[in-house]
Amino acid sequence: MEFFKVVSPEEASEAVRGFSPLPAEEIPSFDAVGRVLAEDVASPVDLPEFPRSTMDGYAVRAADTFGASESIPAYLDIAGYVPMGSAPDFKVGGGQAARINTGGMMPAGSDAVVMDEYTTAPDERTVEIRRPGAVGENVLCVGDDLKAGERILPEGSRLRSHDIGAFSGVGITAVKVRRRPLVAILPTGDELVDPREVPAPGQVRDINRFSLAAAVVELGGVPETDDILPDDLVAIKSRLGEAVERADVVLISGGSSMGMRDYAVEAIDSLGEPGVLVHGISIKPGKPTIIGRVRRGDVDKAVVGIPGHPVSALMIFHAFVRPILRQLSGEIGSDFGREAGVSATLGRNLPSAPGREDLVRVRLERGEEGIIAHPLMGNSAMISTMTKADGYITIPLENEGIRAGAEVRVTLY
Amino acid sequence: MEFFKVVSPEEASEAVRGFSPLPAEEIPSFDAVGRVLAEDVASPVDLPEFPRSTMDGYAVRAADTFGASESIPAYLDIAGYVPMGSAPDFKVGGGQAARINTGGMMPAGSDAVVMDEYTTAPDERTVEIRRPGAVGENVLCVGDDLKAGERILPEGSRLRSHDIGAFSGVGITAVKVRRRPLVAILPTGDELVDPREVPAPGQVRDINRFSLAAAVVELGGVPETDDILPDDLVAIKSRLGEAVERADVVLISGGSSMGMRDYAVEAIDSLGEPGVLVHGISIKPGKPTIIGRVRRGDVDKAVVGIPGHPVSALMIFHAFVRPILRQLSGEIGSDFGREAGVSATLGRNLPSAPGREDLVRVRLERGEEGIIAHPLMGNSAMISTMTKADGYITIPLENEGIRAGAEVRVTLY
Repeated sequence: MEFFKVVSPEEASEAVRGFSPLPAEEIPSFDAVGRVLAEDVASPVDLPEFPRSTMDGYAVRAADTFGASESIPAYLDIAGYVPMGSAPDFKVGGGQAARINTGGMMPAGSDAVVMDEYTTAPDERTVEIRRPGAVGENVLCVGDDLKAGERILPEGSRLRSHDIGAFSGVGITAVKVRRRPLVAILPTGDELVDPREVPAPGQVRDINRFSLAAAVVELGGVPETDDILPDDLVAIKSRLGEAVERADVVLISGGSSMGMRDYAVEAIDSLGEPGVLVHGISIKPGKPTIIGRVRRGDVDKAVVGIPGHPVSALMIFHAFVRPILRQLSGEIGSDFGREAGVSATLGRNLPSAPGREDLVRVRLERGEEGIIAHPLMGNSAMISTMTKADGYITIPLENEGIRAGAEVRVTLY
Repeated sequence: MEFFKVVSPEEASEAVRGFSPLPAEEIPSFDAVGRVLAEDVASPVDLPEFPRSTMDGYAVRAADTFGASESIPAYLDIAGYVPMGSAPDFKVGGGQAARINTGGMMPAGSDAVVMDEYTTAPDERTVEIRRPGAVGENVLCVGDDLKAGERILPEGSRLRSHDIGAFSGVGITAVKVRRRPLVAILPTGDELVDPREVPAPGQVRDINRFSLAAAVVELGGVPETDDILPDDLVAIKSRLGEAVERADVVLISGGSSMGMRDYAVEAIDSLGEPGVLVHGISIKPGKPTIIGRVRRGDVDKAVVGIPGHPVSALMIFHAFVRPILRQLSGEIGSDFGREAGVSATLGRNLPSAPGREDLVRVRLERGEEGIIAHPLMGNSAMISTMTKADGYITIPLENEGIRAGAEVRVTLY
């Protein structure tokens, strides 16, 4: 009987580093929210391209308003009204002002805008100014927002709604982004049947194929589910070989039985270098995880043997497949999102075996003094322990547990 | 000149409460990740439907292993090997054991599984047991995960990958979810041109139409963008009237000029009760926001006048439109996600005017002692202050600012 060599979560994380970003594809920028840039994007133009008012008010020469106050206002002649959407056909000379709306083009000669509330126009020709304007006040000068040639975002940025807005503002209507990672899911298990079928005694409906596919979608990847792998080494090698050619990541789901694990290891190793790197991780749930890599051309394909228990499957997906997808998508940056979570007070003592990282599912409850995290008991074979959970807390390898009342950080599902 | 009556962010939040969930639609459960349940979902069957082993090992009668130890093992006869995917055709009698894999069906007569590592099979007929099994140990009994009739998830749950897995496990292949909210975006502004065009002097490329549409997509809604509204009350009333019939939420984007605001208010009020509820919020950025509601049949349509500055537009969207979309999608629960965020140390003093809620964009940096939040300066007219930001911090209404070194919670974009 083989006892696999269990490595720490940190060592396992090493095995999922160094994947290259996928090739780029050009798409309309309006469809690019959530995608990752495959190139630095610079502004082709100045934004704004002309000096604009950021307020409703009067465009003035600041010098004409120096010293203006409630008691001693300045009086200026109204030289005109700036139309929205075209250049004013007049100038603001000494002692003059122009009515202007937010976003309007500053007339030649003006260098500041005095806000509406500090002005009164007793007639159509004169405006009373009760506050001095400083040069540049309430004015966005040419290139203040973005200069022509200035980088808007670096390669590797995951695009958010405001990034799409910035692209629109400078006329960028197509961008190069990384192709979405294609993840092949190969289910194993002679006991599995399709959820549409009525299982015979001893058979169960497949869970992992569908929960893993949904998890891939949640992370912006494209899942491809395959028929159940037979418990046969030749067939496994052949199906796995095809999947590695086609997909960027291959998940062999289930196969938690010792025999299937051995087959998976042998099949992965048969596909090429470097083969299986990790076989067993000191993490709960998810110990019987396999991490392999297979070189094709100048890129590595990831092949991960995902444990069969439904809770283990998803927790391992988040811990070790998510980082692979992030690298394939070429996303850079500090991944602050990983540190996002909810602070909560632990509802009861939580023991943990030292030498093992524990991922404990919790239900959150809003209490009098903040949020309470209630650990959910139950086996990792029980999917209901996840449907009832709001997220999970991580008890590090060396830790013997956490006491009730301690503050914990909950990673939300 | 009209000065609108500014309300607090809290009062404005009142105006966006009480929207009814949208009608339900039935979709395949495999496509339902991210959607919100429109019904309670109960399990039609027990899960598991037969007692299963959660480990590789030997199914035994626990009583036969009482007192077994390394020094005094128990020896049991191997009655058979449980096949995966079918019912064992034998029983485990007194003094007997059966080889079983994870997920295998417990043979009649057995009530516990002893893990592989505490067993040795010296030959094919006998197994040595070196640890006692307790009744039920490493066994998932009928209905342990979910009982027939037990609620898996309540109406209003936003479905996550593991929920899809649970549905598969009990054979639920279609679910009723809320229709996605349809959000019509009506841009205004005579100065706006399509991003594909080259603007003439005084014209600018439209930003908000596209950033708002992307923000709707980010929240699971369906955006519908319309041509630019002319600066004409009759046309605005007519286009707004059509949009209210068609869409669940109507955003009038831009129109930050005083005249357009007046038109928007008049047009909203002309559509029916209750009309405009908020006109101006003590929040920065985003003061000139309009919130209206128009009753159609027995539901309220939301009509929100979004400020024209691109930063204000998105911040107001997140603060006041996001809650509307959440209600329309029927999502229940504590919205713990709103409290998720990153803890950071403020990089420098940040003054704030009391009586106004300030939403300050920050860039995050990983320092020696944790994450530092650097406030980004710049006008809300500058979209680049958002593309450079990782998120924002909120300075409450009554606060006069936050000192450098204080711990702040950053809501990530």
